[in-house]
Amino acid sequence: MTATMYDLAGIDGRRFSPFCWRTRMAFAHKGVPLETRPMTFTEINANAIDPSERRTVPTVDIDGTLVTDSWTIAEMLDREYPDAPSLFGGEHAMQLTRTIEAWTNSVLHGAVASRVLLDIYNNIEEQDKAYFRESREKRFGRTLEEVQAGRDERGKEFYQNLTPIRLVLRETPFLGGETPLYADYIVFGGFQWARSVSDFKLLDDDDAVAHWRDRMVSLHDGLANSVTVYA
Amino acid sequence: MTATMYDLAGIDGRRFSPFCWRTRMAFAHKGVPLETRPMTFTEINANAIDPSERRTVPTVDIDGTLVTDSWTIAEMLDREYPDAPSLFGGEHAMQLTRTIEAWTNSVLHGAVASRVLLDIYNNIEEQDKAYFRESREKRFGRTLEEVQAGRDERGKEFYQNLTPIRLVLRETPFLGGETPLYADYIVFGGFQWARSVSDFKLLDDDDAVAHWRDRMVSLHDGLANSVTVYA
Repeated sequence: MTATMYDLAGIDGRRFSPFCWRTRMAFAHKGVPLETRPMTFTEINANAIDPSERRTVPTVDIDGTLVTDSWTIAEMLDREYPDAPSLFGGEHAMQLTRTIEAWTNSVLHGAVASRVLLDIYNNIEEQDKAYFRESREKRFGRTLEEVQAGRDERGKEFYQNLTPIRLVLRETPFLGGETPLYADYIVFGGFQWARSVSDFKLLDDDDAVAHWRDRMVSLHDGLANSVTVYA
Repeated sequence: MTATMYDLAGIDGRRFSPFCWRTRMAFAHKGVPLETRPMTFTEINANAIDPSERRTVPTVDIDGTLVTDSWTIAEMLDREYPDAPSLFGGEHAMQLTRTIEAWTNSVLHGAVASRVLLDIYNNIEEQDKAYFRESREKRFGRTLEEVQAGRDERGKEFYQNLTPIRLVLRETPFLGGETPLYADYIVFGGFQWARSVSDFKLLDDDDAVAHWRDRMVSLHDGLANSVTVYA
């Protein structure tokens, strides 16, 4: 089997999609080789992945078959590679991972975006900038500059946003316990997104969440440092 | 086996501890009979549960052996009653439940407390009031009245606090999927706490979280309605 992931790309080798990072870490967790093919927003919007229908990233091409959506891909990996370490940890754990995913997509991604949104803009190709600005400013109801403004003064708010995972990460190395589960990759995608495009310091050095992030970066031979990152 | 839970009690048969409700629902989930013995704050603080050491609620007395802490009790139930429906859903699911518990203890309980704290005060015995006011006002850094003030204007904030569970409950009847897991009981404890002491309307009728709460109230022959509640 050969697998290739269409991956959202910025300038200078930056790969910043939090959802693509979930998939990339998931393949590594399973020990399944994965190539990536960089795509700009403009190419994705022009159906460059699949001329026959609109596809989002991550989409993986597995021996010519396209599979879209990070969750669907992770489910496929656990089904097709039952002998490799489990991503979800069983049926009930998979269902509970949904709540952690929902927290990530809403609370964490919202908090990260409000601190690095303009930095993303500054790290994408010129051809992507008009689309990115228009779509994100519509979503947030403010300019990119306004969204990111005052982030230095919003450190305590970000710290408090992370309380649920911090309480767990003070007790166990990973959300999954002694070893990571897909829940860890979901949450980590949000932090890898930030460090791919921004030098803004999100976490204090002595925060249990920072220590966990360091462990996540080290996983799978430092996969998260195999691309251009700020820190 | 006979099991008795020391249960925090207010006036008029009110049983409002969110942690005791986790345990009460967990016993019902396992089909294990559970008696309860009401205790006031004053009695608990005077070591009425166990003269030899400070115990919190829930503490269960199982054939003369005391077990304290809702999580520890739930683990014991899954271990001792493996043939009854699982509470945690396995080792990995148990670990992921920790994140949902941490979210509940911090985000949900904080949000609920800031809307019903004075209502709790009004539903406890006279002898408990001084202790409750002093300890909670120290914790919140404000008077009980100040904490609860303006709750009518804070509906949108509460709605947004619940986004992570709402996204899941729009897709499945319970956080555990088609049937409840201990994660559901953990979160439900926060809502049962509120409805035990307050008529304040926390949820819109058409909210997926409200529909889930109704399902939780109906479980186990309406156990959550077997005590005095407001709604």
